[in-house]
Amino acid sequence: MTFGDRLAEAMADRGQLCVGIDPHESLLADWGLSIDAAGVREFGLRVVEAAAGRVPVVKPQVAFFERWGSAGFAALEEIMALARAAGLLVLADAKRGDIGSTMDAYAAAWLTPGAPLEADALTVSPYLGTGSLRGTIGAAMKADKGLFVLSATSNPDAGGVQGAEVTVVDAHRGQSVADWIATSLAWTNQSGAVTGTLGSVGFVVGATVDRAEVGLTDTALEKAPILAPGFGAQGASLGDVRTIFGALAPQVLASASRSVLSAGREGLSTAIDAHNRELQEALHV
Amino acid sequence: MTFGDRLAEAMADRGQLCVGIDPHESLLADWGLSIDAAGVREFGLRVVEAAAGRVPVVKPQVAFFERWGSAGFAALEEIMALARAAGLLVLADAKRGDIGSTMDAYAAAWLTPGAPLEADALTVSPYLGTGSLRGTIGAAMKADKGLFVLSATSNPDAGGVQGAEVTVVDAHRGQSVADWIATSLAWTNQSGAVTGTLGSVGFVVGATVDRAEVGLTDTALEKAPILAPGFGAQGASLGDVRTIFGALAPQVLASASRSVLSAGREGLSTAIDAHNRELQEALHV
Repeated sequence: MTFGDRLAEAMADRGQLCVGIDPHESLLADWGLSIDAAGVREFGLRVVEAAAGRVPVVKPQVAFFERWGSAGFAALEEIMALARAAGLLVLADAKRGDIGSTMDAYAAAWLTPGAPLEADALTVSPYLGTGSLRGTIGAAMKADKGLFVLSATSNPDAGGVQGAEVTVVDAHRGQSVADWIATSLAWTNQSGAVTGTLGSVGFVVGATVDRAEVGLTDTALEKAPILAPGFGAQGASLGDVRTIFGALAPQVLASASRSVLSAGREGLSTAIDAHNRELQEALHV
Repeated sequence: MTFGDRLAEAMADRGQLCVGIDPHESLLADWGLSIDAAGVREFGLRVVEAAAGRVPVVKPQVAFFERWGSAGFAALEEIMALARAAGLLVLADAKRGDIGSTMDAYAAAWLTPGAPLEADALTVSPYLGTGSLRGTIGAAMKADKGLFVLSATSNPDAGGVQGAEVTVVDAHRGQSVADWIATSLAWTNQSGAVTGTLGSVGFVVGATVDRAEVGLTDTALEKAPILAPGFGAQGASLGDVRTIFGALAPQVLASASRSVLSAGREGLSTAIDAHNRELQEALHV
């Protein structure tokens, strides 16, 4: 079963919220946990427990595990395995991006069945060009895994690179980088192979992004899962998901991290339920 | 002592070659090592042994360690500690890039004294804009560490993003992304604080890149360490370093991985010496 099909099924079942696992040092302190790999492990396990059965996807932010070196990665392995065993899809938010032969190793690390860090999907970064990711897409499709390629991110400074105009690629001259990335890498979503509602190559499109301003067209996003950060702490409201994404709204996986996690370990389930309710109401009016 | 000063001293002493530690599966097989974390560990330790005293910098490619999860990272920790103890500068080639608050965690992971993965410098990716890296630069400067920001890479497909024309940042409209990145992030190199020959914020500029074509100007690279991949297997010749980089040649750290590593564990020292000789002859004609 393709990642796109598994994601569509999980979203139909449990809504469109993606809960971040971001064991930031300040959150560890707020939760009364130790600021080390053991605290990070405990934090992740509690988030998985609260998220299981409530949402389709959890998204560990790899940087907060990498911070603690091999011990942090051991915690991440355990958390991801527990999440997958609990029926959650795991999206590893690592934003890896390198030349093709190196990307093959990242794909082996995160998208290979049986690998210690096996996830269901991985975020990747296209600064080295679309060609650098073609092998990664092939590897993901072969293993029934998913990718979310950074296209137009939610941070305030993102437009510099992502809104720049392509000049050296003849067929895409004048397109913005964000649109070129989505247009060029979406071929597997649009092929006849995708019989369901979602393909397996997703894109990161921030909820705070003015897509017209960065030149990102809806056509490029046809059948693509859309990971949308920017809700909550970063300024967009879940209640506005339909206003923001329009016809693309059913493809959106709305990412929430700090706004959920700041509820603390006791308030976590309640916070997830409240987020879910707000999102479902906005999606089904 | 700043990273730039340490690098300049090491380059004056031991030349300008940077040896990659890329335990690709095919190289592990060629070396007769097991294709797992133990093989990766052994591979890295042998490269460090051969590189110590011969070159200024070794550059582990993190993907090939990440491939093996926490066990791979444990091997990387050991290899990096051994390298630093042997007087080598360690450049962790991780190409991390994310929003500012996440980049703080990556800086804590790789550039904090005492962290398990402590390196001397880190490669970072600017797809999320120059602002996303400002905090990372601050953290690096505070800890006397270095950064190498991807600007114009050596892979064939790189021009799509890197040669695109900035449109949304008024002060830089019309510059290429590669040039804007270098211009905007080089401020610490050009400040009065840099008394030596090199600053601590470097850039990745491929030896195969036509800098004029991607609009990358020499001005942006003033006093910047330049990590130049693209020699050897990728097509550029060490003997042409002065032709390729002109007046910037003394700032270049020429990266070689496969062309050195394919010599096998027995031939490694000899291969490094030969690369060094070719590079030194080209630099000092």
